[in-house]
Amino acid sequence: MSNDKKIHPHPLELSAVRIRDDYWSAYVDLIRDTVIPYQWEALNDRIPDAEPSRAIRNFRIAAGLEEGEFEGFVFQDTDLYKWLEAVGFSLASHPDADLERVADEAIELIGKAQSEDGYVNTYFAVAEPGKRWTNLVDCHELYSAGHLIEAAVAYVQGTGKTKLLDIARRFADHIDAVFGSEPGKTRGYDGHQEIELALVKLYEATGERKYLKLANFFIEERGREPHFLLEEWERRGRTSHWAPGVVQKMPPQMAYHQAHKPVREQDVAVGHAVRAVYMYTAMADLALHQGDVSLLEACRRLWRNMVGKQMYVNGSIGSTHHGEAFTFDYDLPNDTNYSETCASIGLIFFARRMLQAEPKGEYGDVMERALYNTVTAGIAGDGKHYFYVNPMEVWPAASEGNPGKHHIKALRQKWYGCACCPPNVARLISSLGQYVFAAGEDTLYAHLYIGSEASAKLNGRNVRVRLESGLPWKGAASLKIAEADGAGAFTLALRVPAWSQESIFAVNGERISPEIRDGYAYVDRDWREGDILSVELDMEPHRLYAPTNVRANAGRVALQRGPLVYCFEEVDNGATLQSISLPSDAALRAAVQLDGSVLLEADGYRMTDADRPSSSLYGTAKPSREPQRIVAAPYTRWGNREPGEMLVWIREDR
Amino acid sequence: MSNDKKIHPHPLELSAVRIRDDYWSAYVDLIRDTVIPYQWEALNDRIPDAEPSRAIRNFRIAAGLEEGEFEGFVFQDTDLYKWLEAVGFSLASHPDADLERVADEAIELIGKAQSEDGYVNTYFAVAEPGKRWTNLVDCHELYSAGHLIEAAVAYVQGTGKTKLLDIARRFADHIDAVFGSEPGKTRGYDGHQEIELALVKLYEATGERKYLKLANFFIEERGREPHFLLEEWERRGRTSHWAPGVVQKMPPQMAYHQAHKPVREQDVAVGHAVRAVYMYTAMADLALHQGDVSLLEACRRLWRNMVGKQMYVNGSIGSTHHGEAFTFDYDLPNDTNYSETCASIGLIFFARRMLQAEPKGEYGDVMERALYNTVTAGIAGDGKHYFYVNPMEVWPAASEGNPGKHHIKALRQKWYGCACCPPNVARLISSLGQYVFAAGEDTLYAHLYIGSEASAKLNGRNVRVRLESGLPWKGAASLKIAEADGAGAFTLALRVPAWSQESIFAVNGERISPEIRDGYAYVDRDWREGDILSVELDMEPHRLYAPTNVRANAGRVALQRGPLVYCFEEVDNGATLQSISLPSDAALRAAVQLDGSVLLEADGYRMTDADRPSSSLYGTAKPSREPQRIVAAPYTRWGNREPGEMLVWIREDR
Repeated sequence: MSNDKKIHPHPLELSAVRIRDDYWSAYVDLIRDTVIPYQWEALNDRIPDAEPSRAIRNFRIAAGLEEGEFEGFVFQDTDLYKWLEAVGFSLASHPDADLERVADEAIELIGKAQSEDGYVNTYFAVAEPGKRWTNLVDCHELYSAGHLIEAAVAYVQGTGKTKLLDIARRFADHIDAVFGSEPGKTRGYDGHQEIELALVKLYEATGERKYLKLANFFIEERGREPHFLLEEWERRGRTSHWAPGVVQKMPPQMAYHQAHKPVREQDVAVGHAVRAVYMYTAMADLALHQGDVSLLEACRRLWRNMVGKQMYVNGSIGSTHHGEAFTFDYDLPNDTNYSETCASIGLIFFARRMLQAEPKGEYGDVMERALYNTVTAGIAGDGKHYFYVNPMEVWPAASEGNPGKHHIKALRQKWYGCACCPPNVARLISSLGQYVFAAGEDTLYAHLYIGSEASAKLNGRNVRVRLESGLPWKGAASLKIAEADGAGAFTLALRVPAWSQESIFAVNGERISPEIRDGYAYVDRDWREGDILSVELDMEPHRLYAPTNVRANAGRVALQRGPLVYCFEEVDNGATLQSISLPSDAALRAAVQLDGSVLLEADGYRMTDADRPSSSLYGTAKPSREPQRIVAAPYTRWGNREPGEMLVWIREDR
Repeated sequence: MSNDKKIHPHPLELSAVRIRDDYWSAYVDLIRDTVIPYQWEALNDRIPDAEPSRAIRNFRIAAGLEEGEFEGFVFQDTDLYKWLEAVGFSLASHPDADLERVADEAIELIGKAQSEDGYVNTYFAVAEPGKRWTNLVDCHELYSAGHLIEAAVAYVQGTGKTKLLDIARRFADHIDAVFGSEPGKTRGYDGHQEIELALVKLYEATGERKYLKLANFFIEERGREPHFLLEEWERRGRTSHWAPGVVQKMPPQMAYHQAHKPVREQDVAVGHAVRAVYMYTAMADLALHQGDVSLLEACRRLWRNMVGKQMYVNGSIGSTHHGEAFTFDYDLPNDTNYSETCASIGLIFFARRMLQAEPKGEYGDVMERALYNTVTAGIAGDGKHYFYVNPMEVWPAASEGNPGKHHIKALRQKWYGCACCPPNVARLISSLGQYVFAAGEDTLYAHLYIGSEASAKLNGRNVRVRLESGLPWKGAASLKIAEADGAGAFTLALRVPAWSQESIFAVNGERISPEIRDGYAYVDRDWREGDILSVELDMEPHRLYAPTNVRANAGRVALQRGPLVYCFEEVDNGATLQSISLPSDAALRAAVQLDGSVLLEADGYRMTDADRPSSSLYGTAKPSREPQRIVAAPYTRWGNREPGEMLVWIREDR
């Protein structure tokens, strides 16, 4: 590895990509036309019957424009920052003067809330002045700063305006003066990672290496002994932000914060899932920018553990709601998992960096799995209701009546007091263009099959391509050279999804057998305007099995077609979904709907209690069964019709 | 119904029954020889590496014999009371002068800790004097009083000594002066039911009706609006004993305390399971003693709901550890259940009262199921280790690594700070004789097949019987008339267990076809000395199925033989028990062990990942399977060999 970024395929500028896709444009439009305006209303506490955000109000109080108390979570500022980041992304590909004016005013407000020394955080400004940097384990100060920085970078890219970037840099400079290994600075790090990946972005946007160095410091300091977070806890008198005045018996758990050992020595994904993947993302960034082979190897180990032993089939992570955390290898319960939408977004961040480090299909496969199945599941068709938790199995009565399942919601919710996921979905989808392509010196990678137009410089030639894709419903896709100046060979590299058993490639309609390497098909050619590289992906529905040590899925099977994982809903199959089963030899039929979407159907069975005496709970009569046509629908759309039961892993009759 | 107790078959005096049983005598001896002495050590904080009880120390401080602070739970006194109750029971059938001297000294100590006005509770004496009766929802004051009363009644029955009874009566009289519907008294009741059933026992022991009336008051007052427990919470400033100084947002939940509506109107078992069954027991007692038909009907409704919709196959209850509580109908998760040992003991209390009200086999069946499978599972073979929680499925790694399963222990524990279950097991097993027989005017019922000798008066004749039983391993049992004076017919009634598909009866070796009514076989005869009524119960191993709406058991089967439910352990079957399956047509073979116990064997299968590429977590390769001889062992003994996985409901291959 070298520290020359050019050698690694890098994502295209957002302004160089425009999404035009039958499936995804609807999401992009939804974010732009509905979600961003709706979230602005939420930030201003104007959504009836939803938990108020209070974010704008806190900034107004901190700016001295309004009297009042700070309200909301200690990291409430990030509601606004994530919204601004989404706005920046959206404006990059879709200018909107009205929206930009609203955002500019919000930025104005942030500026007014910033202290002379560059510090900005409304909680500490209003509620606990003088307590800055005294509780990094709980108070998310650097986390909030990170989201400010991310917003600033997106906003300058989307609008060219530097006001927010100036605010962010002043804050970053202040942080750089406070934290570091130099004498007089604090050798600390945040309880919730985020600042690290943000500082890398700030370095990329400004070219200022001190930000990269500071990100590196935070990453390398983490997990060193004596543990900063424990020493800080002792200094504070063993108190927590979450239980004011109470002396705690239990110290903060270092593994929860991925601070149990130096990051280079970590090999198992542990603790709070979002913190973990945000950290891994920064680690991969630093490995790339610094040519750090051993750090990249740590990333690979953590990736392999997470994806190979702790990931759900919908590309989600976090097996327990206790701490929104990983548990341990192969512990993947279906009815109590957390699988936070934000964690899958962080997983996508990480996957994209790993794709830069080494273009391997497995990274793209996981990115696609999380994007198509969990991220979009997180948001309702109306753009105004969200899932934080993405369960594999829902029994609404249990969500109500069993306290261990209260976190499993059968219906998407309007807004949450802790509103991390909605703006996270918004910023990911409004920056989708950054995930579709990557360009190396002379290779254009298509990581995802999302219809779009993009411009890149390849082997010195200015190239504009048009990617068309029938996914997720149809398997035909093509990459057309819309414009290309000059001449000379360059390479088009298409990801060959692992789910496509057979993929047929052609150039200008003529079948080819391209070199397939690590999950990518490479076609090197002196490409000319009008040339078309096409692929026909295998859309045959198929069964997925987990290894036998995933105890929760023993004797069960999941269905997938193309990139979509399917599920069974009560509205299609009746209640008590555990009663239905799918014979292992039953044909899976794709049933195309009027809107072009595809359901799966099969001839299965339903167990009944018809032959059962009703008196006692346990009896010797074996349940009888009757044939039932069973119907599976894309997981990502579940819960958008009548509320009811849902199940991903169905019992299989051998 | 009448209020004449004689009409209902009542349990025999403990001194009239002596257990002599190949299976149960070992438990009775274990309690007497090991558990009672061990628990005395525990009460005195002399068990190394175990959580201290502090019970004796608290009494010494309250009695002014020692300086110090109160330690332990607010209901810690009950550790000593339950121990004394077990001692009383044990002395009834097995006098032991040394043990009696130790117990007398402890009683002496309780007397010294009693206030002038009769009140006794070391927590309020030492830690919060002046705060009596200010927090009934949390502080278990009446609950503790109830255990004092139960101990006193057992001790007078076991020894004839009235000192503890005098202490208890003085306290009960004090309580009667404080609580009641009369003007000037508090219309309140305890957060944890127990006083009610204890007061009925006090009435039975003394003939003093005011105790029955007070029990009735507590039962009838419960659930009336305005809710006493809520008003008390308001008066206290919305605080809880469990979070001192914190003003709570959430009021106490009335359903948790079974106080959400008047008990007569309740029809679904809700809330904390132990509290529920203690209350139902008192309700049945009151229905019996007062000839209260509508109260009995409420008991029947609650029984049917609990046993028909919320009971595990091992006779345990409480589907969640959150509040050690019921959840809702048919919610019976196998890997997160609570199924507290104490709750099954309370279920047995309730069943025995229902058997008095109406001798129906279903009550005896549940009593037997809970006793043979959960109560004895709660205690290790060494008498020094206990399960509080009785899971249906254990994966030790998940108990460690998944916070939602921390309550599931793979190993019995030495002693708990909240030591409810060990002394509860001790008092139940040392009073087992009260559960085997019941005598009506002219009928002797054998509810359980536990070898024993018993004396009863039947139709004016003094009769001594000898019950012999091969259970739980062999199905032969007999009831012999060892002595009988005079002449005249009386009836022997043997329970016909629901698990016995065919039961063959004989008198003096000659086959008979007795009248079978509501699960009992009635044989009316002028019984003479030496007559033997015998039965051969069907010990064929059989499969049990749950109804299809028990989602956790879909496609699964449990095994039972005689009264014992079986389970699969890692030590017999290897790890990953979910990988094994049992064909629905596989023969179940009883394998008799050297000690006479019986394992079950069958030809089943194990799924393997042999054909599976190891790279990714989810793949299209269907797991292959190979034949495996699978072995099931009695659930009640699980975890007594090498620690490992355990599973009750195994996957069935149709």
